[in-house]
Amino acid sequence: MTKDEIHLEGLRGLSPKEVRGIIRAGRWEGPTAGLCEGYAQANLVALPKEYALDFMIFCQRNPKACPVLDVTEPGKLEPTLMAPGADVSTDIPRYRVYENGGLAREVTDASPFWREDLVAFLLGCSFSFEWALIEQGIPIRHIEENVNVSMYVTNIPCKPAGPFKGPMVVSMRPIPHHMVSRAVLCTGRFPSVHGSPVHIGDPWAIGIKDLAKPDFGDPVTIKDGEIPVFWPCGVTPQAVAMASGIPFMISHSPGHMFICDVKNSELATF
Amino acid sequence: MTKDEIHLEGLRGLSPKEVRGIIRAGRWEGPTAGLCEGYAQANLVALPKEYALDFMIFCQRNPKACPVLDVTEPGKLEPTLMAPGADVSTDIPRYRVYENGGLAREVTDASPFWREDLVAFLLGCSFSFEWALIEQGIPIRHIEENVNVSMYVTNIPCKPAGPFKGPMVVSMRPIPHHMVSRAVLCTGRFPSVHGSPVHIGDPWAIGIKDLAKPDFGDPVTIKDGEIPVFWPCGVTPQAVAMASGIPFMISHSPGHMFICDVKNSELATF
Repeated sequence: MTKDEIHLEGLRGLSPKEVRGIIRAGRWEGPTAGLCEGYAQANLVALPKEYALDFMIFCQRNPKACPVLDVTEPGKLEPTLMAPGADVSTDIPRYRVYENGGLAREVTDASPFWREDLVAFLLGCSFSFEWALIEQGIPIRHIEENVNVSMYVTNIPCKPAGPFKGPMVVSMRPIPHHMVSRAVLCTGRFPSVHGSPVHIGDPWAIGIKDLAKPDFGDPVTIKDGEIPVFWPCGVTPQAVAMASGIPFMISHSPGHMFICDVKNSELATF
Repeated sequence: MTKDEIHLEGLRGLSPKEVRGIIRAGRWEGPTAGLCEGYAQANLVALPKEYALDFMIFCQRNPKACPVLDVTEPGKLEPTLMAPGADVSTDIPRYRVYENGGLAREVTDASPFWREDLVAFLLGCSFSFEWALIEQGIPIRHIEENVNVSMYVTNIPCKPAGPFKGPMVVSMRPIPHHMVSRAVLCTGRFPSVHGSPVHIGDPWAIGIKDLAKPDFGDPVTIKDGEIPVFWPCGVTPQAVAMASGIPFMISHSPGHMFICDVKNSELATF
């Protein structure tokens, strides 16, 4: 099977391990939304060891925005909790390599650029709590409208650690009033994928001036009888890491996530 | 007021900050059980920076046994999440200083022994989830019998990280059969203080040969109609750190905890 023969439909029903194998072989370079339904997907941030402890402390201080699913030891490539046997340097369809605070290149295989001193963080992703909302029959507008989720930079400061600091980025989903409690409770069971909303209602209160003009992603329709509900967004740790001026970093490309062997449902607290 | 004039009763009703001030001034060197009712207490493990990232990864991989409440940046003494303004080197009544894997000294003020490269971890403590049990009307046998909780080394391996590895240590509380579900659910809301039980029933299944002979603490009565329920124990990270052969480490002395400004109830997931 050549690269051209693989289409999204052809990947449906495959296990995370099988899909990662296809990605590793360079035969899928597209986004991961819709792949391996029910399984958790994760954001990647890989930093030199020198910065890893401060970054991990930053995540510990800001767990709703930066929920850590897995961390590789320095020089290791296997995320032992989320996908034993996987390789974080090859199993993501598309990576971004940052040098001196700027995007140096986008690649489909990060292994030639990987360094011995890198520590890889896999961070929880909104796909997982959207699954929890969908399971509860709560509509997800940006999926209905087939666009990216609306994301905004807020005036909520993250708690700093070492060189890492910055505002929380949130994603917004309009929720019918009578479903807001349900949305809070069902996502609150999943703190490792951002958990419950950080804010409900009035966007001004968290420094968002115009919902129609998101800082990232696309605007969505807010219908009568709906209220904007804001969840901490996984863009936060990436934005903070990029703004910190560290000289080298590798991340996933937006929408091109690491697919875990762990199901979303298994991420509930216990 | 001199040291001799302070008795446990005299500390009741004081805020965590006030009690920490009394401890810092060297006027209370006793255990902290019963102090600042409703507020979280924490275990301390302070390690050289060189080992801190691996230890933090170990905790992330074993969150039920090693729930991290707060981490100080290297060289800093303030636990910014749990008690802004506090000092982890002075605000605990009694410390243990370990050198080359052995106990070097027990002190009431660790600041003369503190090093610039130390990173302090505050870890969740069973006092907090016992509070959750008591709130639900679930009896705590070792409190009723006025002894230490029974603790056992199990055959459950922790997931290793760097030099840190070893078995999980658990604490056991006998629970009436009809209250077990309640005990699971009410402690499950508090993953940052060990969360739900790791095992319910048959001690043999987790390598415990005789409940009457705990590895640490005291045995307690198990009455008819009760089942032994096992929670991960905060002794785990300390035992693992001590067994790792790291050359320097400071911890609290058993029962002499760090008193946080955060209430137990605030530690529930959201």
